[in-house]
Amino acid sequence: MDITELKHKIGKDLNLIREKKPLVHNITNYVVMNSTANMLLSIGASPIMAHAQEEMDELVSYASALVLNIGTLEKYWIDSMIIAGKKANERKIPVILDPVGSGATKLRTDSAKKILSETDVAIIRGNASEVLSLAKEGARTKGVDSIHSVEDAAEAGKILAKDWNSIIAITGKIDMITNGEDVHRVFNGHELMGMVTGTGCAATVIIAVFAGVDENYFRAAVGGLVMFGLAGEKAAKETNLPGTFGIKLIDHLNSVSSEELIKHAKIA
Amino acid sequence: MDITELKHKIGKDLNLIREKKPLVHNITNYVVMNSTANMLLSIGASPIMAHAQEEMDELVSYASALVLNIGTLEKYWIDSMIIAGKKANERKIPVILDPVGSGATKLRTDSAKKILSETDVAIIRGNASEVLSLAKEGARTKGVDSIHSVEDAAEAGKILAKDWNSIIAITGKIDMITNGEDVHRVFNGHELMGMVTGTGCAATVIIAVFAGVDENYFRAAVGGLVMFGLAGEKAAKETNLPGTFGIKLIDHLNSVSSEELIKHAKIA
Amino acid sequence: MDITELKHKIGKDLNLIREKKPLVHNITNYVVMNSTANMLLSIGASPIMAHAQEEMDELVSYASALVLNIGTLEKYWIDSMIIAGKKANERKIPVILDPVGSGATKLRTDSAKKILSETDVAIIRGNASEVLSLAKEGARTKGVDSIHSVEDAAEAGKILAKDWNSIIAITGKIDMITNGEDVHRVFNGHELMGMVTGTGCAATVIIAVFAGVDENYFRAAVGGLVMFGLAGEKAAKETNLPGTFGIKLIDHLNSVSSEELIKHAKIA
Repeated sequence: MDITELKHKIGKDLNLIREKKPLVHNITNYVVMNSTANMLLSIGASPIMAHAQEEMDELVSYASALVLNIGTLEKYWIDSMIIAGKKANERKIPVILDPVGSGATKLRTDSAKKILSETDVAIIRGNASEVLSLAKEGARTKGVDSIHSVEDAAEAGKILAKDWNSIIAITGKIDMITNGEDVHRVFNGHELMGMVTGTGCAATVIIAVFAGVDENYFRAAVGGLVMFGLAGEKAAKETNLPGTFGIKLIDHLNSVSSEELIKHAKIA
Repeated sequence: MDITELKHKIGKDLNLIREKKPLVHNITNYVVMNSTANMLLSIGASPIMAHAQEEMDELVSYASALVLNIGTLEKYWIDSMIIAGKKANERKIPVILDPVGSGATKLRTDSAKKILSETDVAIIRGNASEVLSLAKEGARTKGVDSIHSVEDAAEAGKILAKDWNSIIAITGKIDMITNGEDVHRVFNGHELMGMVTGTGCAATVIIAVFAGVDENYFRAAVGGLVMFGLAGEKAAKETNLPGTFGIKLIDHLNSVSSEELIKHAKIA
Repeated sequence: MDITELKHKIGKDLNLIREKKPLVHNITNYVVMNSTANMLLSIGASPIMAHAQEEMDELVSYASALVLNIGTLEKYWIDSMIIAGKKANERKIPVILDPVGSGATKLRTDSAKKILSETDVAIIRGNASEVLSLAKEGARTKGVDSIHSVEDAAEAGKILAKDWNSIIAITGKIDMITNGEDVHRVFNGHELMGMVTGTGCAATVIIAVFAGVDENYFRAAVGGLVMFGLAGEKAAKETNLPGTFGIKLIDHLNSVSSEELIKHAKIA
């Protein structure tokens, strides 16, 4: 897609978010529940955080997107994620997976792969080692140690995108997003974002908000990462200390306008 | 009660809170545990957050009020709430229920009603749809769709107050509080409060603090909502962005004096 | 140890923390997960929060220190703590215990003692009543009601340090740290720290960070408490309101340099 057109579509999506206030259902980790709920409210979306299996059907039926995040997982929660994911698939709303720590423990890698096997995930967002751990058995994907550049990540991401039929977003200093064919890179963001807990998880939910208003999930992933990165850039203009930065990051998910988003998006 | 007298009693209650530092035991949701603990400390109270059934008896025995909040419920937690509620009833300390999401899922509506059936709840605080979902089977209460004004809410609230023998506080742009006979309205507050997660839950705990020092629970509910609304008004004078606003809201639960509370309370 | 030498070693430890970025694994309570993760990131460490038993072995194998905090405990979590603690012992990385509320309920006292009995704990950090509740049956330790001064705390702490073969840190207006023989006192800190939830828990994790780079755990406990207290002093220069103070406290765990730490440490 033409980059200028892409930027304008993303700007339109931000307007849609503020108009429609999409409800995002999160089954997520304890650490980030409060901060991601605040980020969702700030950008103009509505958060639900809930995991009880008895109410998954009802809650997913109200949602525009479903976020599954395995940061502090237990068996019950993984089962809830699969129940919710199946319902989301049935309703054709996007499932966004954040495989926190996948690759670091067998439980996490297995759980993420189980979710991917039993539900259709629209978008996977993680860092390079998390995402690359999701390669199927015997896949041609190289391990994370062999990823030395965004180009390497793009090659590996393309294979994973095809294997799981998902958009793959590998975030880092430069973000790489691919649908298996095309690749975009996002250069927005600031290094202070790494000093605040849950900014990876937050990037995932902001992507989910965009996916809640835009059926082109490739574009939604790019849009969410541009938006989140830009909020970080604005926050970093006001402080260089991480506590205050984390609060300003919430602030600027509210302050960024669609015009600013279009103007300051750094996409290739 | 005469409004001027009511305002002065509420001002006295705030002084009592800061003198006695009432301990509030919370069985609440994961999303708001940190923020509500901070709000309780800021106003001058002491928070406990705990749910293990083995220690409910001991912990409730230290408390001046008990808050039950079903925001991220599971069966074990509901059972803990009922154990704690019964102990609170035995000790004659007030139980304050926040039926988060009641009406949205069967699990939530059933759980809230179970708590109401098995324990004596002094005050119920929720938005209109949450509170009205608590109508007993066959009750005359109209559904939430028929509530178009504070007057409608007051009529429905009065019925619920009698049915459950509780003070009913329905919060929104204007808050409505009733004991089944009389009705007060509170006009304090600011729209930015809706942009921060857990402000409903926070209103509930601030009510609980007032109920921890004032056996007139009707007055306590009015006092808590005035106090919380006024803190929001002060916070909104310093920022229009939601991240910073959420922090300033905690700040001003500390800064509001009893004189300010009396002077700026907007009660009818 | 000579106080001047001690201060310089602590300053060196802070440089080591920022160089090595020690990974601290936390099994902690829901209330403070977000704030302590942010404090760990701010000082320059890396946090993991996880409790699933299946992954304890793997996660502890990456860590430089393990924090066990019983603030919102349940049986499953206590079992996870013991599994993790045994693995940490095997790997010879320090286990730091925060016995939140021990003494207030039987479940907490029993759980803390169970952890102490089944694992080797390097450092115990709590307030006087929490720490003193850990006295062994029939121990000579006096109850908390008999502790009227830092000298009393030091006497009781020495006995506990020998009984459990741990460094004991009793925090309060003045902090007391002992290895059973020697005693240090730390005078850094500010009363506003008591107005923010989880500052006790945060003191514990900052101690853990120092223990992650310094095998002299006595010194690490002193260093962590000086560092945390100094961050509080800097924060209190910028605000007197608790919401903002809590954010600035995170900020200054980042801003305090090793030179400042050496210069402003108040140790006896």
